[in-house]
Amino acid sequence: MLSVVLVEPEGPANIGMVARTMKNFGFSRLVLVSPNLTDESYTYAVHARDILEKAVIVDTFDKALELFDLTVGTTGKPGRRFIPYRAPLYPWELRETLKDYTGEIGLFFGRESIGLTNSELEKFDFIVTIPTSENYPVMNLAQAVAVILYELSKARPEPLSESLKPATREEKEALVKIWIRLLEVLDYPKDEERREVFVKIFRKAIGKAFLYGREVHTLIGPLRKAVKKLEEC
Amino acid sequence: MLSVVLVEPEGPANIGMVARTMKNFGFSRLVLVSPNLTDESYTYAVHARDILEKAVIVDTFDKALELFDLTVGTTGKPGRRFIPYRAPLYPWELRETLKDYTGEIGLFFGRESIGLTNSELEKFDFIVTIPTSENYPVMNLAQAVAVILYELSKARPEPLSESLKPATREEKEALVKIWIRLLEVLDYPKDEERREVFVKIFRKAIGKAFLYGREVHTLIGPLRKAVKKLEEC
Repeated sequence: MLSVVLVEPEGPANIGMVARTMKNFGFSRLVLVSPNLTDESYTYAVHARDILEKAVIVDTFDKALELFDLTVGTTGKPGRRFIPYRAPLYPWELRETLKDYTGEIGLFFGRESIGLTNSELEKFDFIVTIPTSENYPVMNLAQAVAVILYELSKARPEPLSESLKPATREEKEALVKIWIRLLEVLDYPKDEERREVFVKIFRKAIGKAFLYGREVHTLIGPLRKAVKKLEEC
Repeated sequence: MLSVVLVEPEGPANIGMVARTMKNFGFSRLVLVSPNLTDESYTYAVHARDILEKAVIVDTFDKALELFDLTVGTTGKPGRRFIPYRAPLYPWELRETLKDYTGEIGLFFGRESIGLTNSELEKFDFIVTIPTSENYPVMNLAQAVAVILYELSKARPEPLSESLKPATREEKEALVKIWIRLLEVLDYPKDEERREVFVKIFRKAIGKAFLYGREVHTLIGPLRKAVKKLEEC
């Protein structure tokens, strides 16, 4: 299931327009991070008031992140310098990427003024960007949501069988933790910054591999064993 | 070249948001039919004020129609009963349809409240509709524009050689006129309503054939000759 997450949306009307667009394209789950939600939002939602009423409100970006198994951030300023480990996807590439995924997806949109910050962008599994004119790349929030939901709604994933459940966030984090522990017991790389990069790359790889829970457990096993052996030495 | 045409837009802010979206996707020509254009429109255009300043304003739908060689209408209420002679295209089908066309295209959007009327929809060469949820199919105007321009901007036609110019509206109308004249001299079909249907179908066929000017002239020749002969009889 895909949820739309608005990070600190500034315009009350925009929140309502986003809810309306979601309903237009058959999405219903909205998460708001410290929103400026007012009566105006409900007016602009028109027949999508129910989406605002059911919206989950959290107070920090990180709390929103924790709600999902897989996270996607949007940016209007693509270019590799903003996203160290991954070139952004175009919306149709994102559709293809997500089409067989049945875990909980969070699709994050930033503030109207400054979007998502670079440190926020680094935390996502995927980054998506709408191809726009170089003369004026910055889109209105609700319109950017409309474009991406339109593209994603062209393909709806069929639920997979129970035995092929996508790994949850917790499972994936457990895998990352054992990796971090492994680097620690190896004391490798010695340089702290380099070690952080090793962790980051591992986390990104996990993110884009669409692992099933079963696969994660299969990966954790040997790593855990290795760590234990190394600790004993 | 593609122009966006807003037919009697009611919300001043929407006009501005449409201008902004146009600039986001690299389109610059806007035609407004009896718009409610105010300072608010300019505020919402943000960095696309120039598009509003250059906008062509006309007072009737028919005058806007006459500006183009090929016209496309948008509707949020698809279904064959509204469009007697053609099923609507989805935006990606429209992109494929228009991709090699180099004439003047008018992409028409209706009023926020009631969209385009059925009699207006009948006059377009093509109808396009965004696939939306049955629970809430009616989109915000500026968001509908964003979705369609996003889809169309995925492919930009290369200009064709001079010798392959698409037929202008005038050329196509001349062809339709000679067809009407032919039906008249034949006095066929006798029933007036049926005759109108014959004309309508002919006009639609011309519209979707993407004729070159040279082809139109080639078609007009024999028809004109036939009419002349028949009149002499």
